[in-house]
Amino acid sequence: MTVRVAVIGCGVMGADHARVIANETPNAVLQLVCDPDKARMQDVADACGALHGLTDAAAVAGRADVDAVLIASPDATHADLALDAIHHRKPSLVEKPLAPSPSDILPLLSKENDLGHRLISVGFMRRYDPSYRAMRLAVSEERIGAPLVFHSVHRNVAVPEWFDGPMAITNSASHDLDIARFLLGVEMVQVSAIATRTQAQHSTCPPVMLTLVSEAGQIVTIEVHVAAQYGYDVRGELVGTTGTVELTEPRHMVTNSALNRSGAYAPDWRPRFAEAYRLQNAAWVAGVIAGQPDPVAASAWDGYVCGKIAETAVAALRSGTCHPVALMDAASIYKAK
Amino acid sequence: MTVRVAVIGCGVMGADHARVIANETPNAVLQLVCDPDKARMQDVADACGALHGLTDAAAVAGRADVDAVLIASPDATHADLALDAIHHRKPSLVEKPLAPSPSDILPLLSKENDLGHRLISVGFMRRYDPSYRAMRLAVSEERIGAPLVFHSVHRNVAVPEWFDGPMAITNSASHDLDIARFLLGVEMVQVSAIATRTQAQHSTCPPVMLTLVSEAGQIVTIEVHVAAQYGYDVRGELVGTTGTVELTEPRHMVTNSALNRSGAYAPDWRPRFAEAYRLQNAAWVAGVIAGQPDPVAASAWDGYVCGKIAETAVAALRSGTCHPVALMDAASIYKAK
Amino acid sequence: MTVRVAVIGCGVMGADHARVIANETPNAVLQLVCDPDKARMQDVADACGALHGLTDAAAVAGRADVDAVLIASPDATHADLALDAIHHRKPSLVEKPLAPSPSDILPLLSKENDLGHRLISVGFMRRYDPSYRAMRLAVSEERIGAPLVFHSVHRNVAVPEWFDGPMAITNSASHDLDIARFLLGVEMVQVSAIATRTQAQHSTCPPVMLTLVSEAGQIVTIEVHVAAQYGYDVRGELVGTTGTVELTEPRHMVTNSALNRSGAYAPDWRPRFAEAYRLQNAAWVAGVIAGQPDPVAASAWDGYVCGKIAETAVAALRSGTCHPVALMDAASIYKAK
Amino acid sequence: MTVRVAVIGCGVMGADHARVIANETPNAVLQLVCDPDKARMQDVADACGALHGLTDAAAVAGRADVDAVLIASPDATHADLALDAIHHRKPSLVEKPLAPSPSDILPLLSKENDLGHRLISVGFMRRYDPSYRAMRLAVSEERIGAPLVFHSVHRNVAVPEWFDGPMAITNSASHDLDIARFLLGVEMVQVSAIATRTQAQHSTCPPVMLTLVSEAGQIVTIEVHVAAQYGYDVRGELVGTTGTVELTEPRHMVTNSALNRSGAYAPDWRPRFAEAYRLQNAAWVAGVIAGQPDPVAASAWDGYVCGKIAETAVAALRSGTCHPVALMDAASIYKAK
Repeated sequence: MTVRVAVIGCGVMGADHARVIANETPNAVLQLVCDPDKARMQDVADACGALHGLTDAAAVAGRADVDAVLIASPDATHADLALDAIHHRKPSLVEKPLAPSPSDILPLLSKENDLGHRLISVGFMRRYDPSYRAMRLAVSEERIGAPLVFHSVHRNVAVPEWFDGPMAITNSASHDLDIARFLLGVEMVQVSAIATRTQAQHSTCPPVMLTLVSEAGQIVTIEVHVAAQYGYDVRGELVGTTGTVELTEPRHMVTNSALNRSGAYAPDWRPRFAEAYRLQNAAWVAGVIAGQPDPVAASAWDGYVCGKIAETAVAALRSGTCHPVALMDAASIYKAK
Repeated sequence: MTVRVAVIGCGVMGADHARVIANETPNAVLQLVCDPDKARMQDVADACGALHGLTDAAAVAGRADVDAVLIASPDATHADLALDAIHHRKPSLVEKPLAPSPSDILPLLSKENDLGHRLISVGFMRRYDPSYRAMRLAVSEERIGAPLVFHSVHRNVAVPEWFDGPMAITNSASHDLDIARFLLGVEMVQVSAIATRTQAQHSTCPPVMLTLVSEAGQIVTIEVHVAAQYGYDVRGELVGTTGTVELTEPRHMVTNSALNRSGAYAPDWRPRFAEAYRLQNAAWVAGVIAGQPDPVAASAWDGYVCGKIAETAVAALRSGTCHPVALMDAASIYKAK
Repeated sequence: MTVRVAVIGCGVMGADHARVIANETPNAVLQLVCDPDKARMQDVADACGALHGLTDAAAVAGRADVDAVLIASPDATHADLALDAIHHRKPSLVEKPLAPSPSDILPLLSKENDLGHRLISVGFMRRYDPSYRAMRLAVSEERIGAPLVFHSVHRNVAVPEWFDGPMAITNSASHDLDIARFLLGVEMVQVSAIATRTQAQHSTCPPVMLTLVSEAGQIVTIEVHVAAQYGYDVRGELVGTTGTVELTEPRHMVTNSALNRSGAYAPDWRPRFAEAYRLQNAAWVAGVIAGQPDPVAASAWDGYVCGKIAETAVAALRSGTCHPVALMDAASIYKAK
Repeated sequence: MTVRVAVIGCGVMGADHARVIANETPNAVLQLVCDPDKARMQDVADACGALHGLTDAAAVAGRADVDAVLIASPDATHADLALDAIHHRKPSLVEKPLAPSPSDILPLLSKENDLGHRLISVGFMRRYDPSYRAMRLAVSEERIGAPLVFHSVHRNVAVPEWFDGPMAITNSASHDLDIARFLLGVEMVQVSAIATRTQAQHSTCPPVMLTLVSEAGQIVTIEVHVAAQYGYDVRGELVGTTGTVELTEPRHMVTNSALNRSGAYAPDWRPRFAEAYRLQNAAWVAGVIAGQPDPVAASAWDGYVCGKIAETAVAALRSGTCHPVALMDAASIYKAK
């Protein structure tokens, strides 16, 4: 069976997804790409050999020649498009965040629960990164004892002037929040946040430190530094009672030159997580064929929880105090997971 | 277009190729698997969802439902099966060595030359490994000046008792010979070889050192140590006039435990070169669709040259002196490359 | 000139200091060692070739044949012995903490201020570690822009059962507090602290996370994990506006064996900081000869400040809230520094 | 006891030795420095606080106020000065090579043998480098099984125009030859050599590859590349039957900046081997006090052997064939070692 995939959104993320679906995903065909900007849409369609091109996202999910929808449009449109896909009983893979505000995710949870099964996957692709997979395996094989602390560092080269600390939490740190939950297998119950306030950085977004406590009493620290300048750099270490595991940078070459031994950083997340995106999309397509989402994939519930923790972290950053994370009860279909 | 691939040989290599074609190669379908051992064949067919299973390799290339043949049968059968594929005008990807003796490759060269185009690719998959690709790019971008020396280290965990130094050269070091040529872009003109002769290793194959000189006066050193015990480990460094580039081990995780900081070695080549095999097979399938072999792939000529150098190195190991590498003239279709 | 050094205390630290003074410190002679436990004292005296051995610490500083006193006795005795050394106008190098409680340090500050110059150095030896020195130089050479965040990780193999979170802060994290101040060149104004509360670790001291804010608005994070089991491991990264610097583990060898590539961790701090101790003691002796303390060395004031921050961090750990660090005004002799 | 050391030669090496003796060597005093260039001599004397300064090297060893002589004058003068030191029964530490030609070392061997004990140590300081010491310990503790192969890489940034391949062997690779013998504990019996002959490097000294065979049948490879441009870089790996050990670069800091993660190379050998020189000189002084050379130090015999292997390697480089190493029989005092 071949899955006919529609990719909605032809920006940076959408174009990359279209390319991955077209060239690197077994058993998938890039049925159509869609973007209100026709020129941009056509460029991606041509580059990836999409069979069709549309400008109206509302017309996608209902098409008979589309089996599954990959939503990479602007954040504010995610929830409605995912709802539309559910309406047509089409599985969707939605870029994070599932919605700008966690409250906007509630209708999706309710709809899936009514339906009795999950159709939405959220693009927390780190779950497919071989390093995190190896770390998770190390935990389950008890190679580091019981997990105590998870440290995550998330650095981007640069952000626009208007990007601020709260956005760094909701848009960037959400990946770290999800992977912390994925690795530890428990929820977060408390969060505090602090940003640097030095003169040096006036025109850029300051680094933010989040400190979270899990329901099992573990600590998670996240440094999210979106204007780190030196390179795209993601680090993680899981500290257990008897040892630790750390992810490595997937670097293929070292250069000795000009009195330095050096390895390159990517300027953005795409090279770093290229394999994660490829594996995520392949697992998603395999799940579509199998009739149920890949168990590793983040669900709409995961999207809601990460949104809620991020929202709480922003409040904690503003108040300067520690905040409890208040989640609603998970509907039964999410508990089964 | 979808390429219907037949995989001949269901041993370790064939089973892995069948899996890659079935699960990781876009635009390919695993049309059939073939092995004289019916049980083994059926296992691979079932595991990979092959549409058909055969026990007679001679019946494969001629089938109308087969577009391309992947030959991973015993070494001695490679050349005949490749010839059969040429006879039926089917592209083939042949595991190395293309033939146990380089003289057995001459008919293939002659046949392809008569035909006027290449149909055979040889499975020197390192050419697709991201580390070697990055090294090659570094050379073409002149980041290390002009190449002077290439060091290659090739270590396996263990080999059977009957494996000896000459076999280490012909069966293992051939990868290093090909990648040296690929990186430097020139031929080797001279080779010497020496093996350790210590008491310690009586029951295992000793490490062998090859020293080659290229037609451009560069030096290539290869340590091939097939009973290294500690892990599967391949290293490479290209030394240029202004700097060097080294490949790294693609390791996803570091573990801190029991007074050690450590990274795991794979027990064999499959995890180390998993991505190379995947990319090689995808490029091969793309070449079948395009109607001409991927330019990166090793040709029958490359298979002949590596066989010839290896044969010369074995003679040098036996004589203890330096031997010139005597290649026949390349037919025109191989010069075009 | 040769400095005649008396080492007070013949426990683990004292014995090591005696060895360093006797064998690795130019222009120093190990004049005497002192410990109330005569057998232990005699062992160290013999092992290091001390000229004299005493059991009464009160008799040391006043001796005419002692030029300088190295105090490595139990923590509770440090302040009195340092006071005694001041009384006899002898320079002292005092192991940290200078006193168990910062209030006990006030008389020392007052005494030195009355005297008009500093006699006490505190053994925050990390200031002499080549890695931290290189990091500090990188800051002053503006290789990472303006410092924003300092991350410190401090892990020991094990501690006795009665060692708890507050002790981890006062006895272990004090090194991290001092080095953070040394690298950033500013004081800390605020601290919060949190420890894990998992079931897994009941019988060992849990990891503690400190988050501090400097008067310049920078953030310092310290993980102090004294029962990390896997090895003695100290890490540090200084994040600036344009890049970061990280200290490395000073490891001399890598071993490839048994499917692992590994580097050893020391079981305790002595091998890791052997060079720091050697350089610290040499600089201290050079300062004695020069008549004024080495400018890199921590002063009694630094000892007081680190004690005060640690005390505040313990209170923050207990309250679960963020605490301001309330320092007294520095006397003029400490401002000059 | 304090050893009064005279340093002969105030060039780069001599100045460094004078500094180490004056500032970093316990139980030593820099009694005098000597150089025919008076200004240069005075500079070093002043910088290091030497008690005396001389211009006539012949007058040094006989002085009553000199206990031991460190010879760092031009290579051609080493043997005569060492002979003079023997004449006055003074221990000497002689920079390598002990003489430009191994035949010039024969009188020294004969003299020491007549005397019945060794007075000369040769400055093969790598024997004191912590990495090589750790490798040697790993061998004796049988952590890698029986040694089979030793790989050494020796790269300098640059050499003068007139420096050629033979000089790279005699002046630079002699360190690698000595350390190979030190690690393996056996002599070399055979050597071949080859240099690159590419157009790219016309004005610089080409990399030279040496391949040696030990009397135990082990293989030693040495790449000596004195115009490597990118940095001073020394590598070593000892391959045993069950694993390998590799020395690491003693790097204190990593910098993340400008899309690179990098560690610095030193421009020359002094930072890389600073600790080796310090430990060597301290052990030499301790040996002077003890009345017999430190057992780790290279003897005049070691100096002769390394000279002889280098001489043979130069002949092999010229002939393009493999040469046997023909050593004289060691006198009895060298066998005892």
